[in-house]
Amino acid sequence: MTVSTRGPRSRLSPEERRSQLLDLGVRLLATRSLDELSIDLLAEEAGISRGLLYHYFGNKHAFHEAVVRRACDDLIAQTAPPPEGEPLDRLLASMTAYVDYVVANYEGYLSLVKGAASGNETLRQIYDDAMTVLTDRVFIEDALHEILEDTPATRLVVRGWAMMSEALVLQWARDPRGVTRQQLDDLLAKSLPALIGTVSD
Amino acid sequence: MTVSTRGPRSRLSPEERRSQLLDLGVRLLATRSLDELSIDLLAEEAGISRGLLYHYFGNKHAFHEAVVRRACDDLIAQTAPPPEGEPLDRLLASMTAYVDYVVANYEGYLSLVKGAASGNETLRQIYDDAMTVLTDRVFIEDALHEILEDTPATRLVVRGWAMMSEALVLQWARDPRGVTRQQLDDLLAKSLPALIGTVSD
Repeated sequence: MTVSTRGPRSRLSPEERRSQLLDLGVRLLATRSLDELSIDLLAEEAGISRGLLYHYFGNKHAFHEAVVRRACDDLIAQTAPPPEGEPLDRLLASMTAYVDYVVANYEGYLSLVKGAASGNETLRQIYDDAMTVLTDRVFIEDALHEILEDTPATRLVVRGWAMMSEALVLQWARDPRGVTRQQLDDLLAKSLPALIGTVSD
Repeated sequence: MTVSTRGPRSRLSPEERRSQLLDLGVRLLATRSLDELSIDLLAEEAGISRGLLYHYFGNKHAFHEAVVRRACDDLIAQTAPPPEGEPLDRLLASMTAYVDYVVANYEGYLSLVKGAASGNETLRQIYDDAMTVLTDRVFIEDALHEILEDTPATRLVVRGWAMMSEALVLQWARDPRGVTRQQLDDLLAKSLPALIGTVSD
């Protein structure tokens, strides 16, 4: 296959070029479902040929997988807890960033959640890996157990809090039904310690 | 189409017969996904012809829809709050019955949740209707507002509690990871008032 590179693009290595295309794919996914994110669309938006995209990604399935992995990497990076502060405050800053991310990338994020839930094994694995990183943070940020112990029951509670937060943010982003962003943030912030408080020894 | 009825079955009206077949479908669905619940399987288990089943249900899609509606009716009936007691106790008895239901009907319930999440519009509607009945109960049982007010924020909290409960029960039923049924029941029971306590005016 002849890869046509010309102009400023020729200065990028193939790896950089692939990475740039993935970033574009993630941006397109923000306001689209995976079904709507085609190789054709990416080719048009990037101003390059379909053939070149197949060169970089192989097929549509692999392209979707790579874009979703990159989107999850972005989610994890954008919700990284700040380095300073009390553990609970750091976690709540991370949760606020999570709400920002879901609101800004609603269609793509919903599409990932749906794909993972519907039994697409690749999407389920990517989604589960990302969720594990997000929920493990609670235990990593609270390394001194100031907020909670690390037990099977607290692991279940934190997972439940994460699932609830996801469901609430998705529902709120679709239809706020009179609930303000501040009320949503308050609810998510206060619900973690409230739920932890329900765990009996 | 000639409907062959003979023996004791002939005493049932067509409506009773259809209802009996739906009950069988629901029992089969308890330990199977919808994809695994075929007209062939139902015919075999019921000891009647495929043709008769098509007479009753039209096609596989309509058969699945009818079985899922019946399963949701069963879920709603089996989780009806007891008539006596404090509102919170009645709701917690209902939640315990919900855990029992999901554990006993894990495969079918999971299949409904997945189907609703994946964008099957019929399943989504049936699922949403059932979830609405279950979450509205909190406000109906607490008609005197002893537990909570009826506001957009409390509606969101109750929905969040329901989504969290479903996620936790499904995860626990799949893999308890060292959490006992008693711990699960305690968590679900205490988390409703704990979450309601987080709502600011």
